[in-house]
Amino acid sequence: MLLTPDSLATAQRSLGDPALDYPLLPPLTTGCPRTGTEDVAYPLELDYAYDKVDTAALFAPAAARTGLERWAPLLPPLLAPGLGEGATPLVEIAPGVHVKDESRNPTWSHKDRLNRCTTSAALAVGARGIAVASSGNHGASAAAYAARAGLRCVVFAGPDLPPAVDSFLTAYGAVVLPVPWEARWPLMRQAVERYGLHPVSNLTATHTGHPYGPEGYKTVAYEIFQDVGTPAAVFVPTGYGELLYGVWKGFTELHRLGLADRVPRIHSCESAAGAPLATAIGRGVPAARVEVGATSAYSIASPVGGYRGVVALRESGGRALTLSDRQLAEARAELARNGLWAELSAAAGLAGLRSLDASELPDDGPLVCISTSSGFKDREVGRRATAPVAPEWPEVERRLRAAGLAD
Amino acid sequence: MLLTPDSLATAQRSLGDPALDYPLLPPLTTGCPRTGTEDVAYPLELDYAYDKVDTAALFAPAAARTGLERWAPLLPPLLAPGLGEGATPLVEIAPGVHVKDESRNPTWSHKDRLNRCTTSAALAVGARGIAVASSGNHGASAAAYAARAGLRCVVFAGPDLPPAVDSFLTAYGAVVLPVPWEARWPLMRQAVERYGLHPVSNLTATHTGHPYGPEGYKTVAYEIFQDVGTPAAVFVPTGYGELLYGVWKGFTELHRLGLADRVPRIHSCESAAGAPLATAIGRGVPAARVEVGATSAYSIASPVGGYRGVVALRESGGRALTLSDRQLAEARAELARNGLWAELSAAAGLAGLRSLDASELPDDGPLVCISTSSGFKDREVGRRATAPVAPEWPEVERRLRAAGLAD
Repeated sequence: MLLTPDSLATAQRSLGDPALDYPLLPPLTTGCPRTGTEDVAYPLELDYAYDKVDTAALFAPAAARTGLERWAPLLPPLLAPGLGEGATPLVEIAPGVHVKDESRNPTWSHKDRLNRCTTSAALAVGARGIAVASSGNHGASAAAYAARAGLRCVVFAGPDLPPAVDSFLTAYGAVVLPVPWEARWPLMRQAVERYGLHPVSNLTATHTGHPYGPEGYKTVAYEIFQDVGTPAAVFVPTGYGELLYGVWKGFTELHRLGLADRVPRIHSCESAAGAPLATAIGRGVPAARVEVGATSAYSIASPVGGYRGVVALRESGGRALTLSDRQLAEARAELARNGLWAELSAAAGLAGLRSLDASELPDDGPLVCISTSSGFKDREVGRRATAPVAPEWPEVERRLRAAGLAD
Repeated sequence: MLLTPDSLATAQRSLGDPALDYPLLPPLTTGCPRTGTEDVAYPLELDYAYDKVDTAALFAPAAARTGLERWAPLLPPLLAPGLGEGATPLVEIAPGVHVKDESRNPTWSHKDRLNRCTTSAALAVGARGIAVASSGNHGASAAAYAARAGLRCVVFAGPDLPPAVDSFLTAYGAVVLPVPWEARWPLMRQAVERYGLHPVSNLTATHTGHPYGPEGYKTVAYEIFQDVGTPAAVFVPTGYGELLYGVWKGFTELHRLGLADRVPRIHSCESAAGAPLATAIGRGVPAARVEVGATSAYSIASPVGGYRGVVALRESGGRALTLSDRQLAEARAELARNGLWAELSAAAGLAGLRSLDASELPDDGPLVCISTSSGFKDREVGRRATAPVAPEWPEVERRLRAAGLAD
């Protein structure tokens, strides 16, 4: 087994029963085999030799921007070459309100942090390629990291694959297979089982995803901590809850390592059209499945939740916020007014913050909203074209006047 | 006059005659008034109190990612709020070949480094807004920085504005005015003169652009130097030559400050469809105008060159490389195979490197190609859609087999 020497990862640990652990390889991509039931699949996470972490070295100022490898001790072995993922900026858009702009990643979404880790797992098990079910950011990111690692990539996309995302996936050489939504997981599972592809997205009835994936998201917490210390609260766009869990786990580790004196509240920000996590919390169950109504927030509107989100909310005291498309659009507009063009789903973090009354917001530290992805990925992009202007000054002046720019 | 205390900028200096200098404000956006002729407009750059630079502090490892302000002493006063621009990664795609991925900026192109500086100038002169002529990255970046600074933005776009770029510009609240190419500069000049808009793109017959703009691009050189020291050569996608000049100037400053022992060769990489810089070099003139043939490289295919490019090539011993669309497409494909989806124009740096024989490449240091922007910005994006797949395993297997993934 090839491992990078820097990783202190020791085992896969079950979220279904934290007393249960398994070797690091092979990654248990269908959940914890001993705790899963017919109704719920429990994910795994990684455990580390935390007592061996050199925190001073790990959090020292960095000379060069090196991607996730700078956090290698607290990540799975990073066998797959990187693309300089992570190290995204925090942009303060209002006093004490910071946006962590994940559109600065290699494929312009947070998913790159996950795929650096999952593609590494695919190399570790000698897979010929990876498979992913996605109509957007996850697929594109998987395709990029597979290309970089010399692996093939098969993307089981939804039938509603936005044309620009199709171009995006195809550019990296991925095999794109648009199939009906309900057929994606069963077909992907067959491809995985029959042809030795390594799955980097979910295969189970409630979401487990890949055990290595959310580990990559922990680095979001490390970076926030380096930039502003421990925030009072973090608002996370939430689909399956992997980012939510990763951010929570990262802060938990900072606390465990004696670097942070507390763990912030981590709030989930789901589309109101579905919201399996809010549903699970409401029902008091480990994971829920829901019907998804009409929404443009295609990146977070998930019919399937998972146990990770429940753990992150319960342990951090976070709330399960749900946002309408109108609230998402208002938050997206607020981001744009501040120079950040985000995908509708990516604005869920800020929408979640804005959905609370001022009295509900803690005042003992900065508030951080994660913005996961760029505005280029929305479906309506490119559908509207500004009418040409006659190339004469009076017409230009008329337009400027209409915009309040000439008086 | 408001100035940030950190800036050591002292004056505007003429490139037409470096003995001529002018106060920092107002920015001379129509070139050096004393050296320009009917044929050539000479740009200005900024001079600094180089003897006051604390190089040890300036190049110390950084704890947080703070955007261009970390280089504030060697930049114009940064009055406009930032978006965490810069600090983009170098990705090694072949032994000794590094790609500086500028698509990691706030609006996913290098232009953000320029617009942080030019928008700061607009604030310094109390402008009500900015104006820019652009059908792509420059316009979007200007729109974002204007929004962030609370300024209006008017974009004089070409008639061929890609629909996705239209969405991009509009999202930030810019006033978009698509007009015929030849009408853009005259109309923008009128808007600037009549309504107090500050121009952040060119207004002159040969290119001068904004004096503050290329100063922002110097930070590309600083970052490369921090990451890999002084490269043997840098290959720069070249339209008007502002990025080319900025990168050259940045390395020149590092040499002047005693940090680097030499200045690398800086090669310009133009579209063969136009190539005003190669034309100027061939003719031995300070700047040329050319006819632009058919090309998809819309971001770099410029009919107008400027003197900055001539200076950068002459002083660094760089070559004026010209690339066909086929060469650009091959370089774009090589980048994608390495996980980087670039705009066609953005691949010009790598295309330039690949256009040289191995014997022509220096071996005394790393080779760096700048990739300026993301693949989302090409015109053909979203035009092709992958055909849906019947949701049955035999059909999926057939597709996998066709892709060489099932055997």
